[in-house]
Amino acid sequence: MKLSKRALEMNFSPIRKLIPLADAAEAKGIKVYKLNIGQPNVVTPDSFFEGLHNYKEKIVKYSHSQGIPQLLESFAKSYQKMGINVKEEDLLITQGGSEAIMFVLMAICNEGDNILIPEPFYSNYTSFCQFAGAEVVPIETTIETSFHLPSKEKIESLITDKTRAIMLSNPVNPTGTVYTKDEIEMIAQIAKEKDIYIIADEVYRQFVYDDIPYTSFMQLDDVKDRVILVDSISKHYSACGARIGLIASKNKELMSCIMKFSQARLCVSTIEQHAASNLINTMDNYLEDVRIKYQNRRDLLFSYLNRIPGVVCYKPHGAFYAFAKLPIDNAEKFAKWLLTDYSYENQTLLLAPGPGFYQSEGKGENEVRFSFCTSVDDIENSMIILRRALEEYNRIER
Amino acid sequence: MKLSKRALEMNFSPIRKLIPLADAAEAKGIKVYKLNIGQPNVVTPDSFFEGLHNYKEKIVKYSHSQGIPQLLESFAKSYQKMGINVKEEDLLITQGGSEAIMFVLMAICNEGDNILIPEPFYSNYTSFCQFAGAEVVPIETTIETSFHLPSKEKIESLITDKTRAIMLSNPVNPTGTVYTKDEIEMIAQIAKEKDIYIIADEVYRQFVYDDIPYTSFMQLDDVKDRVILVDSISKHYSACGARIGLIASKNKELMSCIMKFSQARLCVSTIEQHAASNLINTMDNYLEDVRIKYQNRRDLLFSYLNRIPGVVCYKPHGAFYAFAKLPIDNAEKFAKWLLTDYSYENQTLLLAPGPGFYQSEGKGENEVRFSFCTSVDDIENSMIILRRALEEYNRIER
Ligand SMILES: Cc1ncc(COP(=O)(O)O)c(C=O)c1O
Ligand SMILES: Cc1ncc(COP(=O)(O)O)c(C=O)c1O
Repeated sequence: MKLSKRALEMNFSPIRKLIPLADAAEAKGIKVYKLNIGQPNVVTPDSFFEGLHNYKEKIVKYSHSQGIPQLLESFAKSYQKMGINVKEEDLLITQGGSEAIMFVLMAICNEGDNILIPEPFYSNYTSFCQFAGAEVVPIETTIETSFHLPSKEKIESLITDKTRAIMLSNPVNPTGTVYTKDEIEMIAQIAKEKDIYIIADEVYRQFVYDDIPYTSFMQLDDVKDRVILVDSISKHYSACGARIGLIASKNKELMSCIMKFSQARLCVSTIEQHAASNLINTMDNYLEDVRIKYQNRRDLLFSYLNRIPGVVCYKPHGAFYAFAKLPIDNAEKFAKWLLTDYSYENQTLLLAPGPGFYQSEGKGENEVRFSFCTSVDDIENSMIILRRALEEYNRIER
Repeated sequence: MKLSKRALEMNFSPIRKLIPLADAAEAKGIKVYKLNIGQPNVVTPDSFFEGLHNYKEKIVKYSHSQGIPQLLESFAKSYQKMGINVKEEDLLITQGGSEAIMFVLMAICNEGDNILIPEPFYSNYTSFCQFAGAEVVPIETTIETSFHLPSKEKIESLITDKTRAIMLSNPVNPTGTVYTKDEIEMIAQIAKEKDIYIIADEVYRQFVYDDIPYTSFMQLDDVKDRVILVDSISKHYSACGARIGLIASKNKELMSCIMKFSQARLCVSTIEQHAASNLINTMDNYLEDVRIKYQNRRDLLFSYLNRIPGVVCYKPHGAFYAFAKLPIDNAEKFAKWLLTDYSYENQTLLLAPGPGFYQSEGKGENEVRFSFCTSVDDIENSMIILRRALEEYNRIER
């Protein structure tokens, strides 16, 4: 029986696909450090659990398709606090940032349209585009320029009449790059001139280090019709399993279409929405403490990586990922080998191989993404293991 | 800026679109009886809330994309108890039955493919097809034959090389029809001969009255490769806001594709999955009590409706909806009029007009769906109001 083109062409998550090998290693009694996924080890704020336990309804009912009023209000307030002028009516609650991106692409893309995305990028972007029948057109960025954007001309040269939007995460997953104000303004300029949308995935917005200034696309007045913000509590509040995300846009026509999609799937979990509404009461220190932790973990990871012979790593300014070139022939082979053939003092690593973040064939082959949202102990141990593993791998391979 | 074809063509939920008028009526102090939506008024089982409060993790983490093991196990067990042989590996947890249907259609349809659906049908089926780029081909059923299926030949004559599946809810929303074993076997036969899938939406399976025997497509061995079961706790356990649904299928290739979709959106709410896992410990009486309640509410609604002059209603054997012909010119006009121009003792009704459940132009114009998952008091009051409203409407209209 037939399966659809999108079903056949879509890939398994490159981040999740090594998990069976990791499970097998663990079954052999090996401790596996999971530097592959963006699952923070910091606790979810108490405010979330208070919200959860304050839910006292006897019937778990469908809620509004747009989201419950308290949650819309609390998001609107928190944006206003950041100087971003959005009202409840500009917001729509989604099942994580994931559904938000899917809805946005579904709303603007027909079969055969395309979306420009700086590469390397979050691998699920490809899947979301496939859902909508759209293609990814990668904008090349490289480690040599810390994964910052190429020139305006270069980006413009990629745009065709099939291009519907530029989509980018800022800070970037997987590189930790934080775009400058100039870059943000350049993208805005391009979007205006070429009459396309900007999909601004800001799910890592709170994690910007070294006092680097952060510019949100929502702060730019002259593109406010074409900016579509994707947000989520997953990373900001270490509440990944809550599946609460959001779309914000001043474009009423677009939001009205997305509202139709939301009605089709009825609503987002009512109880999780209640819990998330109470995040507005999170202690002021919470986000700052988390940011300070990640910044120091970044430093720790970076100083280790930087001292391993042959490793090329740029110091990320945001998110909780570092993207590095390793002295290896093939990151996928290396990542598998770590799980099936290697252990150091009965421990090994689960890494996210570079090619999973590229659409362009042959790219990222000696690159790897490291998450540093894990504990400092784990970072320390992982880096010791990595150093030894690289020695061993290259000894055998040679 | 452009919007996609699907975004422009999709309709607002016909069930939800009268809500603003109902809100306005309520703002005027009028009590509005909401017979339009499938939101049960029976309480969610204690077991669900126990599961919720037993969640003691400090970090709300992403869970497995397929679903947490406890929930998969509890679903597998409950199917086995019903004599349906499915294992954990045949299951995948989704964000309600809604996401389940969307994933299934996405997995089997390319742009331009079509899906056969007995009409009238759950209005969101159209939206899910639009997400996948597929078209609905309605199979005509009428109130005169209690919305049972037409002949094998008639159904087969609708099938083209673009047809990927027959999708049907059993019991049917909006008519409450329960298909006979013969009908189920006929569909299975057609699917086999034409090499297409069967999408069996059984979210109302527990609500079958009058000792009518129920046949699940999952019980038919010779089509087990082509049957895709959609299920949900929304209606069975009055837990609509939990957003826990499920796909079950023995077709490994198909399930593997759907697993890719699941990985793209990461996971279903972790906490809700925990809560739902504990539904397996629901008191045995719970489901039976609910069924008995609905059956009696159905009787009450039916005896009222049947006595209103000019109303044609068939007595539904399942689900919690009755679909009736009213002595009116236009159900949409009537439903609006009830909210904007009418009240009886300061009360009025919110109804779901028939055309929302038809794709075929001009059908269902004098039909209305009534939900009877509301209280008996509400049913009683609503029916008194309906009788008076029909008198008044026809007096004015004439
Ligand atoms: C860049 C980016 N966007 C969106 C998401 C989706 O996250 P969620 O659906 O949990 O909000 C992720 C998750 O890792 C991400 O890295
Ligand atoms: C026939 C049918 N299928 C599926 C659904 C989806 O329900 P949920 O997404 O809450 O599981 C509904 C909801 O009303 C329905 O009536």
